[in-house]
Parts: sequence; C-alpha cells; structure tokens
Amino acid sequence: MTEELNIRQGVLKDIPELVRLYEETVEHLESHVNYPGWKKGVYPGEAAAEEGVKTGTLYVAEAGGRIIGSIILNEKQEAAYSEASWSVDAAPGEVMVIHTFLVHPDFRRSGAGKLLMDFAEVQALKEGKKTIRLDVYEKNEPAVRLYERQGYHYTATVDLGLGSRGLPWFKLYEKTAGECLYGLLSRISPLSSEAMELAALTWSHVAKPLFSLGILEEDVIKIAGISSSPSVDIGKRALIIMCGDNGIVEEGVTQTGQEVTAVVTENMTDGNSSVCLMAERAGVDVFPVDIGVCRELRSGTRNPLIRKKLAYGTKNFRKEPAMSRETAVSAIAAGLCMAGELKEKGYRLIATGEMGIGNTTTSSAVAAMLLGRDPAEMTGRGAGLSDEGLRKKVSVIREAVKRYEAQCRDAIDVIACVGGLDLAGLTGVFLGGAVYRIPVLIDGFISGTAALAAAKLAPSACDYMLATHVSAEPAGKMILEELGLKPFVAAGMCLGEGTGAVASIPLLDMALEVYTKMSTFQDIRIEEYKQW
Amino acid sequence: MTEELNIRQGVLKDIPELVRLYEETVEHLESHVNYPGWKKGVYPGEAAAEEGVKTGTLYVAEAGGRIIGSIILNEKQEAAYSEASWSVDAAPGEVMVIHTFLVHPDFRRSGAGKLLMDFAEVQALKEGKKTIRLDVYEKNEPAVRLYERQGYHYTATVDLGLGSRGLPWFKLYEKTAGECLYGLLSRISPLSSEAMELAALTWSHVAKPLFSLGILEEDVIKIAGISSSPSVDIGKRALIIMCGDNGIVEEGVTQTGQEVTAVVTENMTDGNSSVCLMAERAGVDVFPVDIGVCRELRSGTRNPLIRKKLAYGTKNFRKEPAMSRETAVSAIAAGLCMAGELKEKGYRLIATGEMGIGNTTTSSAVAAMLLGRDPAEMTGRGAGLSDEGLRKKVSVIREAVKRYEAQCRDAIDVIACVGGLDLAGLTGVFLGGAVYRIPVLIDGFISGTAALAAAKLAPSACDYMLATHVSAEPAGKMILEELGLKPFVAAGMCLGEGTGAVASIPLLDMALEVYTKMSTFQDIRIEEYKQW
Repeated sequence: MTEELNIRQGVLKDIPELVRLYEETVEHLESHVNYPGWKKGVYPGEAAAEEGVKTGTLYVAEAGGRIIGSIILNEKQEAAYSEASWSVDAAPGEVMVIHTFLVHPDFRRSGAGKLLMDFAEVQALKEGKKTIRLDVYEKNEPAVRLYERQGYHYTATVDLGLGSRGLPWFKLYEKTAGECLYGLLSRISPLSSEAMELAALTWSHVAKPLFSLGILEEDVIKIAGISSSPSVDIGKRALIIMCGDNGIVEEGVTQTGQEVTAVVTENMTDGNSSVCLMAERAGVDVFPVDIGVCRELRSGTRNPLIRKKLAYGTKNFRKEPAMSRETAVSAIAAGLCMAGELKEKGYRLIATGEMGIGNTTTSSAVAAMLLGRDPAEMTGRGAGLSDEGLRKKVSVIREAVKRYEAQCRDAIDVIACVGGLDLAGLTGVFLGGAVYRIPVLIDGFISGTAALAAAKLAPSACDYMLATHVSAEPAGKMILEELGLKPFVAAGMCLGEGTGAVASIPLLDMALEVYTKMSTFQDIRIEEYKQW
Repeated sequence: MTEELNIRQGVLKDIPELVRLYEETVEHLESHVNYPGWKKGVYPGEAAAEEGVKTGTLYVAEAGGRIIGSIILNEKQEAAYSEASWSVDAAPGEVMVIHTFLVHPDFRRSGAGKLLMDFAEVQALKEGKKTIRLDVYEKNEPAVRLYERQGYHYTATVDLGLGSRGLPWFKLYEKTAGECLYGLLSRISPLSSEAMELAALTWSHVAKPLFSLGILEEDVIKIAGISSSPSVDIGKRALIIMCGDNGIVEEGVTQTGQEVTAVVTENMTDGNSSVCLMAERAGVDVFPVDIGVCRELRSGTRNPLIRKKLAYGTKNFRKEPAMSRETAVSAIAAGLCMAGELKEKGYRLIATGEMGIGNTTTSSAVAAMLLGRDPAEMTGRGAGLSDEGLRKKVSVIREAVKRYEAQCRDAIDVIACVGGLDLAGLTGVFLGGAVYRIPVLIDGFISGTAALAAAKLAPSACDYMLATHVSAEPAGKMILEELGLKPFVAAGMCLGEGTGAVASIPLLDMALEVYTKMSTFQDIRIEEYKQW
C-alpha cells in the first residue's frame, strides 16, 4: 500500500474531495472515540480546506487517485504558543506549524500518517525553518503517541481558548530542524546490490582485461548501485559551488581579503572563473550558490546565482562560534534540498565546489576536530600563505579546537563552532546525494571536509560519494582514507571552486563509453580473461 | 644562410637548372682541382639529372629560389660493392646508395653539403633502410674528409671500372641506420626557455591562486617550450598504437594466445576497442600501426591501418634475440618518422599506445635491464596472469637478462635482445617527438618502458615527454621517477592501448581552457596572489 502513496500540494479542484475526507473522518470519530474533539460542520470543514489550498500550505496524500489524508503546514502559531519555553529561539517566519493533520479511517495503518509527518519534516528543511511546532488536544492519545514516536518533544500544556467547545487543554510539541535532519538521514537506503552485481557482470563481459580500468570501473559500479540501475547515465551533471565568507579572516589567516569571495562569485555567474571554463568543456552546468557571502551580489545570466544567503559571512570563531547550530542546520538543509531539486530536474551527477576566502582555515579546524588530529597536520597554505601566515593559521585553529572541543556533540556543532556556511552547504549536498540517490563528487580538501562531516552525520552517505582528485592540501589524502574512497586524479591541484571534481568527470565519461559501447568477448570471438 | 636552405625532391622543370648546376660545378672543378675527376659533358649531365628526377631519387637544396646543390639517393650498388665486407648484412632493397652529391662552388661552406648529408640519413631512416653506402674517388680528399666527419666508415678500396677515365680506385664507405639514428638524435635542440618563461608569466596573471593547477600548469609550460610558443595549442591530437607480436608468448607467460593481437588490432581499425571509444570522446585521431603482428591484417575504414610490418612477430628471446639490432633500428625509425609525419599533418600532441600479447613480459625485461633492477620488481600480472604464470614470467625474464646483459651496448641492443617491435616503434615515437618538437604522452608501463629506452638513447628526449597516469603494473612508477616526470592520473588503470594517455587529455584541455580564456587579475580588478 505504502508504495503507491504520493504526496502533493492541494489544488482548488481538490476542495470538494477534501471536504468529503474531513466529513467522513469526523463522522467516524464521532461514531467511535472522538479523540481530537472535532465537530462535523464546525472544524475541519470547507473553510480550512479552501484557505489551505489558496495559501499553498495544504498537502494531500493520494492513493490510487483518491485523497486519503491531508496536512496543513503554515507559520500560524496560536497566541498561547508564546507561553511555552521552546528549545529553539526562532523568529515567526522560521517556525513551521502543523495543522489539520488527518488520515481517512479506512487508511489507518496504511503508513499514510507517518508519510505525511515525514513529508512535513522535509518541507520544513526545504523552507529553511528552524523548528516545527504543533498542538494536540491533551486527550487525543493516538495523536500524542504518533508525535512522540516521530520524535516530537512535549513542551507545555496551554489553553487555546477552546474550553467552550470542551477542549480546555492542549499539549504543545516541537521538533527542531536538526532533529528533522537526523530523521531524514536515518531513512537513507543502502545501494542496490542487484544493480551493482549486474554492472560488475557487464564489465566482466567487456572485451578488455578484467578490472583494467581500475577505480573508474569501481566507480561505474557504485553509480549503478546509487541509481539502482546497471544502465549508468551521467549525461546531465551539475556543479554546485557553495560561496560564503568566513569571519576568521579578521585574524590574518589568508593572503587575500574577504571582498574577493563576492567578486569571484559574481564572476562565476558570468561563467568567468577557472571552474566555469573547465565545466563548459566537460559539459557540466554550474550553479553558484550565495549561502553567506558578505555583501549583496549581482547575478550574471550565464550561471544565474542561487540565492540562499543565511548570513553576511560567519562570525570570527576566535571570538565566538562561527554560527548557531540552527544556522548550520539551515545551511545543511539548503544543500540537501538542492541535491533533491537537481535530481528532480534530471541531473544524474553532482560535483561539489566552493568559494570563500578563509575556507581552508575553517576546513582545517573542522577536519582536525572530526578526525581528532593535530591542526598542524591538517593545515596547508591555502591560496599561497607565507610561513608566518601558516604559523598564525595553525595557532588560531589549535586555540579554537581547544576552546570548542568539549561542547561539540556532533558534526553539526563542529561546523557551527569553527566551520563555514559553504562547508555546511556542501555537507548538505553530500547528505542530499544519499537521501535522493544521486552520486556526489568530492573535490578537494574543503569539499572533502564537508564529505567527512556528512559521513559523521550519516555513515551510509559515504556510499553515495565518489572521490575524484587528491588535493595538494596535506589533509586531503587523510580525509579520503578515513572515508575509504579512492581518488583517480593526482595532479597536485589546489584551486578549489570544484575544479578537481569537474576535471575528473571526462574520465568517468570515457569509462562509461567503454562500459556502454564496447563489444563483449563474445562479439569479437575471443576467449574471456579469467580471474585467478 | 643555412636557415634559408630548403631540401626537396627534384621535379622535371628543375632539369635545365640542374644541368646548369652540374656544368658550373664541373667547370669550377676543372679550372681548380678536379678532385672527383668529373668531366663536362660526360658526367654528371642531363642523363643523370633526368633519371634521378624520373625515379624520384634526386633531391635539390634550394636557397632563395635557386638550386645550389643536389644529391641522388637510390639502391644502385656497383658490382664491385660486393667485394667489400660491409658491417651490416642487408638485402639490396635495404641499402641506400648516395650518388652525384654536389654543392655549387659559390655555396661551399654554406652548410648545404652537411644539410644534404643529414637529409640523406633521415631519408634512409624514413625508407627503412638498414645502411647507407657510397663510393668516392680515392683522391677526392675534400669528399673523403666530409664523409668521415659525417661518421661514415671506410670499408674497402675497389675498382669500379673507371680506370680508362683516369679513376682507377674508389674508396667505399658506409654508415648504418643505427648510426644515422644517433646522428639525428645528437641534433635534438633544447626546449625554448623564452616560450616557457612567457607561459609561466601568463599563468601568473591568470586570476586564480598561483600554481593551483599543479602538474597541469607545469605541463602547459612544457608544451610551450616544446612548440617554442606560449600560444599553446593541442587541438589536433593523435594516438599512435603500435601493434606487434612477441615470440616469448611460446613460453606460457600470458593468459591469452597470440592470435588476440591481430583480432584486437583489426578491431581498432574499425574503431572498436576501449581506447578507440575513449579517443572518440576526447577528440583524438587513432592510428593503429601494424609494426609486427603475426599475420596479415585486414583494415577497417574508421582508423585505417598504418602498414609498417617488419616481421611476423619477434623471435622467442628465451632461445635467441627477439630481433636483430638492424630490425630494432628500423622499428625505431618507423616510429620516429611517424611522429614527424603527424607533425607535418598539423598534429600538436601525440599519445602513445600499444597492443601486443606478451608485451608486459618484453617491457619488464627491457625495463629491468635499462634500470639495472631485479625483474621480480618490474613484473606484474599483465592482463590477468595466475600466481604460477607470474613465477614463470619472472624466471623467464631473469634468465634472459642474465643471458643478454653483457652483449648489450645500448638501449637498441636491449630492445633487440628482449624487447618487442611495438616497444621499439614507441621508442621511436618518443624520439621523434624530440626531433620534430611535438609533445608525446606516455601511457602506462609499456609505453613508459619505451620512453625510458628513448631517454637512454637521447637524454634530452625526456623534455618532450609528458607523463599521464601511473600504471597499475609495479614498475610504472619507478620508470616515471627515473624519467623525472610527474603523472596526474592515478586511476589504477592497466588496460594498455593508450587508454591512460587518452584519458588524461581532457585534463590538459581543461587546463588550457583556463590558460587561454581565463581573465587576469587585472581584468577582474583584484590583487594578484604573491609567491612567498
């Protein structure tokens, strides 16, 4: 049953069917136990459905062409919500509130309720919300059980002013975006072993010595597993470049000033940067994302800017955490959802890149904390730092690691304390690859650090990552080893922007040419090579 | 003066001018010292010129549109040549004979004589001759001096039957193709340091961190040095695949039979092999060369077969040398001349590949001898050998190294004793790259071994080679280190055919996109990175 369920936004012509759903549900409740205390003709009815559809906040669960459940997701908090002490401090626009959540009585236990709840959580992440809140009549035990099972926390019991209708007390629940993120990650499914076996079989029939394309063969097999099909296709591919500024630049850890981030990002939208030229040659569409550049940006028309700005750069982590945990979650969510959107648009491969002066410093700090290594081991000269600059950089990072170590419970905290918005966004892209089953290419050290953070949050996300090149920054190799991934380019590149990932794509293309077009031993009538 | 000299084949309309050249030269001789004993109206005259032109064996040296010298290069040995004991045992068709070599008296000391002699040697190599022979009147001291300076060896003094004309004794001289080859190699010129400095300067202005494209940047600079221009262009590129069989296969050192070489070579001419598919994707023209496949080959039309067959496979080097030194020289010359022809056709980059069952065995033997290492270190499983097969392979190679070591004076001898025709041909391609100033890409272990042999014959040839990938065969890395070259792909490939070299070309293309099209710091108005 669950497989045929589909959730979509409600449209005007759904309203009569929605009203019928509401009525039949309330009738059933009234003739059994009316947990929520709903009343036919009072609530929920046509008014609720109409408002939900018109404001684009109502979603329906469909099965076999029939609407079997619905949910409204908006920002409307009842006045009494302010009485509770919520765990996340969020502005009104940063809160998603769940309303009018119901499943037709015929479809209890169909999984539709859980699916709508999961959907709400993804929707909250997509909309960049920091938290989800809801109220439930205190005696509505089935709903309370469902919410608690779904990971919502009880916050307070309040009067919503419905005492006259016999509903004096409501319980308030919440689930933070971070918890929603973890929920989503717990649902990452494994690679398709069937597709991988078929791909390996295909390789073994190709008229060439066994395994002779090395890592490229393994990567093709992995992509088959990711896309659940031995017909591997990476024809449409994207490069996501997360661009953001880093407050730590104040400390003199870079050769260039912070203003360069904005200039280069704008140039990328004009198609004018190293990686854009390489991407054009390799047939890769470029998506520069402003996730936290320190000024407003102009967009060119060649690669229009994706606007996801969460802040005008991060804070200086020598003085305070780079960002709040909630902002880190929002940045991760932004990257994750972008991977999903690109998958929907038909992309079959995502390369990762970044632009942000100071981001080898943030990456070194994050990698040192995640790997538990001395920052000196993880720290290189970035884009051309002097000896003195390097010493300064290492000392700044060491100090920060010591300061924040104890308070970091997970990789999100690490990114929030010493990371960057670009790093967080890329972490999300890697997680999104795993959630939406699309291979994501690691670029160099910064992108690798993001991949490492993703792997710490969801170990199975590694299965959806492909290493491309070994960065010239010292920690690059260490990170790939930790991830168990093998790069296939070792050109000593350290340009950033995703250049290493993009440069590697033609190699995958060529391996795929052989995989898809090459004759088999049978075709050319020579005996197959045997594995010894 | 020398710079404006140009050598070309004589054509019919040259005959009157040739006759004038002959007459003026003989007049001058007769009025000074008539060293060669030529006689006006007798020899050389119109008959000689006409025959030379009509048989396509006469070449002229031109300066400023005027013919200032000439030479005839044919296969005609006087009967008395058979009295000499020549150092090279060659069939009549394998001998080039120099006749009617003269330079106008006004152009003595112009370099024209040396240039015509050098030309004759290259021509001998192009035609696959094993040796050059000539006779000179014993009292023609200037000519004798010239020939000796040019490296010709005195062989015998004979009577050519011209005693009645006052020329009783002639000296016979010879120069082997191997000596001609060494002569050509001694004229390899260094890279253009000016072009390299300009290329490095261009890189430093490109708006990106200094040196951030790593090895790719260095390779672009090197190509600038090779082509003597900072305007680097590798738009037209070729893959030469040398295909040949190896007698050593008899010893059970491979998993597949020798017949596979022919099948795969034929498939390559149809565009149907792994490397052909990859080359098509990378925009590389494929030239499969039959330099020694063990049967006659059919050619497809996609990549027509280049027919340079020197033998139906080599001998089994466990029993006797794989080939004669002369055959090795011919194979090297064939590869060298092919590089020159491709350069003339406008190619700007040559990738190297090979096909030949058993050629990891020949390569291991050659590499072990050239590097003075134990064959066990140099020997891998080739295309999927078993443990037992590997032991066998190592022992066959060890035995051969011991057997031939003492008799090998140079890399040509090593190739002749334990190498293969494919290996020799590729050695020639690398040498040709240096002679004709065109960058040549090393592929994997076999191609690397050929590059090593080329470097042993002419150390400066290294400057014209680019490493691409590190082969999975164990000796691949060792060879590149010996050559001082840095690969930039490390995909664990071991397919052969030139796949690694071809796979690497798109990376060079992308680096060149950045090199040629990327804005400078000045364009985008940010300060340049500085070198610390």
